[in-house]
Amino acid sequence: MTSEQRKSFGSDNHAGAHPAVLTALAAANIGDATAYGDDPLTEQVTARLCAEFGAAAAFFVFGGTAANVLGLGLMLRPFEAVICAESAHLNGDECGAAERVLGSKLLTVPAPGGKLTPDLIASQLAGRGNSHRAQPRAVEIAQATEVGTVYTLDELRAISEFCRASDLLLYVDGARLANAAAYLDCTLADLAAHADVLSFGGTKNGAMGAEAVIVMNEPLAAAMPFQRMQLMQLASKMRFLAAQFGALLQDDLWRANAAHANAMARRLAEGASAADGVEIVRPVQANAVFARLHPRHIAALQHDWTFHVWDEDDSVVRWMTAFDTTELDVDTFLADIRSTALREPHGPGLAHSG
Amino acid sequence: MTSEQRKSFGSDNHAGAHPAVLTALAAANIGDATAYGDDPLTEQVTARLCAEFGAAAAFFVFGGTAANVLGLGLMLRPFEAVICAESAHLNGDECGAAERVLGSKLLTVPAPGGKLTPDLIASQLAGRGNSHRAQPRAVEIAQATEVGTVYTLDELRAISEFCRASDLLLYVDGARLANAAAYLDCTLADLAAHADVLSFGGTKNGAMGAEAVIVMNEPLAAAMPFQRMQLMQLASKMRFLAAQFGALLQDDLWRANAAHANAMARRLAEGASAADGVEIVRPVQANAVFARLHPRHIAALQHDWTFHVWDEDDSVVRWMTAFDTTELDVDTFLADIRSTALREPHGPGLAHSG
Amino acid sequence: MTSEQRKSFGSDNHAGAHPAVLTALAAANIGDATAYGDDPLTEQVTARLCAEFGAAAAFFVFGGTAANVLGLGLMLRPFEAVICAESAHLNGDECGAAERVLGSKLLTVPAPGGKLTPDLIASQLAGRGNSHRAQPRAVEIAQATEVGTVYTLDELRAISEFCRASDLLLYVDGARLANAAAYLDCTLADLAAHADVLSFGGTKNGAMGAEAVIVMNEPLAAAMPFQRMQLMQLASKMRFLAAQFGALLQDDLWRANAAHANAMARRLAEGASAADGVEIVRPVQANAVFARLHPRHIAALQHDWTFHVWDEDDSVVRWMTAFDTTELDVDTFLADIRSTALREPHGPGLAHSG
Amino acid sequence: MTSEQRKSFGSDNHAGAHPAVLTALAAANIGDATAYGDDPLTEQVTARLCAEFGAAAAFFVFGGTAANVLGLGLMLRPFEAVICAESAHLNGDECGAAERVLGSKLLTVPAPGGKLTPDLIASQLAGRGNSHRAQPRAVEIAQATEVGTVYTLDELRAISEFCRASDLLLYVDGARLANAAAYLDCTLADLAAHADVLSFGGTKNGAMGAEAVIVMNEPLAAAMPFQRMQLMQLASKMRFLAAQFGALLQDDLWRANAAHANAMARRLAEGASAADGVEIVRPVQANAVFARLHPRHIAALQHDWTFHVWDEDDSVVRWMTAFDTTELDVDTFLADIRSTALREPHGPGLAHSG
Repeated sequence: MTSEQRKSFGSDNHAGAHPAVLTALAAANIGDATAYGDDPLTEQVTARLCAEFGAAAAFFVFGGTAANVLGLGLMLRPFEAVICAESAHLNGDECGAAERVLGSKLLTVPAPGGKLTPDLIASQLAGRGNSHRAQPRAVEIAQATEVGTVYTLDELRAISEFCRASDLLLYVDGARLANAAAYLDCTLADLAAHADVLSFGGTKNGAMGAEAVIVMNEPLAAAMPFQRMQLMQLASKMRFLAAQFGALLQDDLWRANAAHANAMARRLAEGASAADGVEIVRPVQANAVFARLHPRHIAALQHDWTFHVWDEDDSVVRWMTAFDTTELDVDTFLADIRSTALREPHGPGLAHSG
Repeated sequence: MTSEQRKSFGSDNHAGAHPAVLTALAAANIGDATAYGDDPLTEQVTARLCAEFGAAAAFFVFGGTAANVLGLGLMLRPFEAVICAESAHLNGDECGAAERVLGSKLLTVPAPGGKLTPDLIASQLAGRGNSHRAQPRAVEIAQATEVGTVYTLDELRAISEFCRASDLLLYVDGARLANAAAYLDCTLADLAAHADVLSFGGTKNGAMGAEAVIVMNEPLAAAMPFQRMQLMQLASKMRFLAAQFGALLQDDLWRANAAHANAMARRLAEGASAADGVEIVRPVQANAVFARLHPRHIAALQHDWTFHVWDEDDSVVRWMTAFDTTELDVDTFLADIRSTALREPHGPGLAHSG
Repeated sequence: MTSEQRKSFGSDNHAGAHPAVLTALAAANIGDATAYGDDPLTEQVTARLCAEFGAAAAFFVFGGTAANVLGLGLMLRPFEAVICAESAHLNGDECGAAERVLGSKLLTVPAPGGKLTPDLIASQLAGRGNSHRAQPRAVEIAQATEVGTVYTLDELRAISEFCRASDLLLYVDGARLANAAAYLDCTLADLAAHADVLSFGGTKNGAMGAEAVIVMNEPLAAAMPFQRMQLMQLASKMRFLAAQFGALLQDDLWRANAAHANAMARRLAEGASAADGVEIVRPVQANAVFARLHPRHIAALQHDWTFHVWDEDDSVVRWMTAFDTTELDVDTFLADIRSTALREPHGPGLAHSG
Repeated sequence: MTSEQRKSFGSDNHAGAHPAVLTALAAANIGDATAYGDDPLTEQVTARLCAEFGAAAAFFVFGGTAANVLGLGLMLRPFEAVICAESAHLNGDECGAAERVLGSKLLTVPAPGGKLTPDLIASQLAGRGNSHRAQPRAVEIAQATEVGTVYTLDELRAISEFCRASDLLLYVDGARLANAAAYLDCTLADLAAHADVLSFGGTKNGAMGAEAVIVMNEPLAAAMPFQRMQLMQLASKMRFLAAQFGALLQDDLWRANAAHANAMARRLAEGASAADGVEIVRPVQANAVFARLHPRHIAALQHDWTFHVWDEDDSVVRWMTAFDTTELDVDTFLADIRSTALREPHGPGLAHSG
């Protein structure tokens, strides 16, 4: 499905691991280490993560769905619900993990640009105290969002203040938190300050497979060791999850990786928007480009390149960049986009009306 | 907690990854690959696993608890129960994962030597058809067991035949299946033939962190892709789980690793049994040695060495070997066992009476 | 909260039990009976229910939420989802019971008039086979719906045919199935023929508290005895649930009760629509009347009468009738509606434009 | 299965409802009442229950399994476990409801006479703080126990003090709490003082079908309204559950019923113990008699009488009495027991040696 010659624009998890991650894994492999996280490297990297975020605790898990479910799991009893965007990964891309594992209902809101607002959240609070309704208890937002947008610090603050005033806890899905921090040019602590619990994604940003759950609201952390084991997320050779984050934290590799991926997305968007028949349909803030082009144009490009059709009815595709996308990769792709546009001219009526 | 100078005898998951595994990870890191298992390496290694086991399907997951829960999850509705040994990892060491994730009850049986028998299984079938009782549907055994014993092929066959005759499905926890195959000098297919679903552990046998669920009973496999996602076990960069198994399958590294660990356990048991005041309390078949020694003797040894006290009341310890335990490691440990026994002689009445 | 002098129009479950139900309970109370449904009365009434519906099996449970969850529970594994209307009781009024108890996701669709259609159902099938999406497996509709509308037999047939062609199972929430049958002047079997599993509500139609789950698709029934016990719906003195349905089935009391309630709703709607400033906003098919009137008008009426404001923003109220609502009750209420309208005239601009 | 002429000794839930309960239901049936417990009768009876128990809150549910699961559900997160007797109804007779609905593991202890002790509870605390183990959080005892024994107030106090000192919450399954209070000649408050949450059974003591969850530990109560709805235990016509408890509380009918049932059990045990070949194998404290008699003797009696064989291997039967068992019922049964013993004399070697 992937073309070995050409860079995939399908997803940031089509990329492999950053060489520094492999090096760190090899270094971590020397000697024995107590299992299940009771080893010095885990302790050390956890402490660095906590320092970076100003967090009370941090825990490694295997994947992003697990981070979301376990992070929310610290906040919720089964009759308590999560307010989230309809477009949330949690809602549409995790096979109902939250519902099954936590028993909790998702109260979804259509969110333009993938972003919740205090008003949108408020729209889901009517059932409070009514025993027939799942009780809103947590708000889930993604930073960056599923559609490549980034909440500003002001937007985050507004949501956070609304949550605190409304007795709601805030969980931030940070599978691409690095991309958001790079875009906003802020620290991880700046972002985390607004959350009760958040995730910090490694996998999409150069790790081999590692995510962290960061707990800001200290009392929530106590349940995690047990929950992590019970929910099948306790690595026996934990040092190898820790090592990956160790590498990403070293000299802020996480930021460099994310900033580069973001820059490549901007380069791609800028180049593509100049091509005939290509319309960039969302602000390019993180490492995703959403573009509308003609269906025949899409089909032709997919012959050689890997990327997702995001909305078939709307003829919108998603192009993602990664830490290892090069300028040459982008430029080669752009050349093809341009030439395909020339080969597949669209006549009148082609422009999307929806 | 571990001593960097001395080999840990605490667990086979205190060891790192085999060098071939690291090499395979580096090789797998070249280029892009479609995520979530839709990549050529995953396809290839999965096919090799299926061939090795004579299996209908194989799926990678992150850890052993996940393999058990997801494997059993293919077999059970929530009102259906699992018959297992009281000493099963599933029962005592997974923080209630099966109960929580599957909703299923465990019907536990005291099992001498950690092994179930048809008679022990039969003792749990009385409630069948009675709606007040969770309905026995699956039998879970571990091969090798938690206490280092190995079912013979005849014992497996007897259990398997009993299960089939009794409308029970058989799940085998194979976190140490390699050690069992090495001990019995049989193929993985020989072991798997008796199971409906089983796990094949990589982590304790030289992988960095990877387990496989092997499905022999084909119709059970269809639910796995969805269940694996919903239960947070679908790796996005799946190639890195596949690569680990690729390395273990190459030239039967899995068998060499396990055979070596088993041999080191035997060497340790033989040497220790000659020491004054040390009693080997279980047959040493896989890579664990269970020994009874005087509490002061234990305390003295733990000053320098890492291992678990298995049963404090009974003064029994567990020593585990790994793929990378050397003869020198064993002999150094033995020397200390002997000298400790000399330094800590036990007087009359010291021998355990239980 | 209720006024003892005045009939409640708040809900059909504000009414008590029909006298024939009390008589049947007293009759059932004579002598001993084996518990948990193994008694002659349960057997007898169950057989009558099966005959009435042409069903494979029928099971009594305590309430409507239980009927829905257990009925759907016969159809679903936790990664399988239910397609239902956003306005479904299952979605908005059961505190997330389906999500918690079954682990299943609800795929909700805005449904005008509370009714699903094959097209609306089809809109939720895109994720089939994609392991990131909960897999659509069941469709849930209510007959009558939460908003008092009734699917015609043709509409039911169309949905049922679509489901069968699309490998979907159909569950019908029949908390008010009697009202639908009375409205359509059809048999219960006519309605049931289209479903795989359905519920038949007693509580809202003159029982004290009893619902039945009716299984048309025979293989689905086998799990029910165990599921019913595990999900806390197995009555020990089952004869008293059976007795209630016995009374409702006797001489089609269920139909008489429902037809009467429907007639009272029509009488109320007709009378109210003649009142100044009252707009009937939905077809009155079952026993609910949805009316828009001026907020001050609503407040004045609520001073003396019990009913729900359905949509505060839209100034819509719900008036429900029951088996024991009399013509005098309706006429007294209508007199007050009219006089309130006169006392609270609405000026220009008052009529709602939404 | 039951003989209409002869009183069942099979279970206290083979009896019907006490006439006062039927009368109360009829009285409660007059007029309308707001649904879901927001009615004056529910409020009133709830207040009386709270006064009787010295409780913070009380909630009606449909059955005993529900009471246990919902009561424990106020105390537990899914990784927290319940310590209970192996013989607990919760463990062996509820089809795994606690595991499925709460996700919690049961840590079972063989308990002689069905009773836990501080020492037995302490034996399950070793895994505390170990993330591989479900964390003991609640202790469940039944008063009276499944085997008809009753904890003394001193025994309760010892357990309660141990729990409080050990950070454990105490739940008491009071399906037969009335029988225990009658046996101990104490108040319900005396029993409840030792518990954090308990149930108070109506069904086995003359109700038609109603149980109450009594919350002593006030902060635990807040979750109940939502949990009760989500777990399908919120009666819409709640007044009919309240009415049953209203009747049982009136003039302490609950105590009279239970005391009578207990007395009938004692009469039966005394009479039977005088019969040849009958051995009473447990103290008769509540309303159950456990007797060992010859298998042929059992078979002959079961021809005419309804009762359970409790332990087939041990040739032990259970005879239960109810609020409506008469002296004549007991004496008629005793006459048959005696005559059967004469007709089925046991030769040498017949007496059970187990």
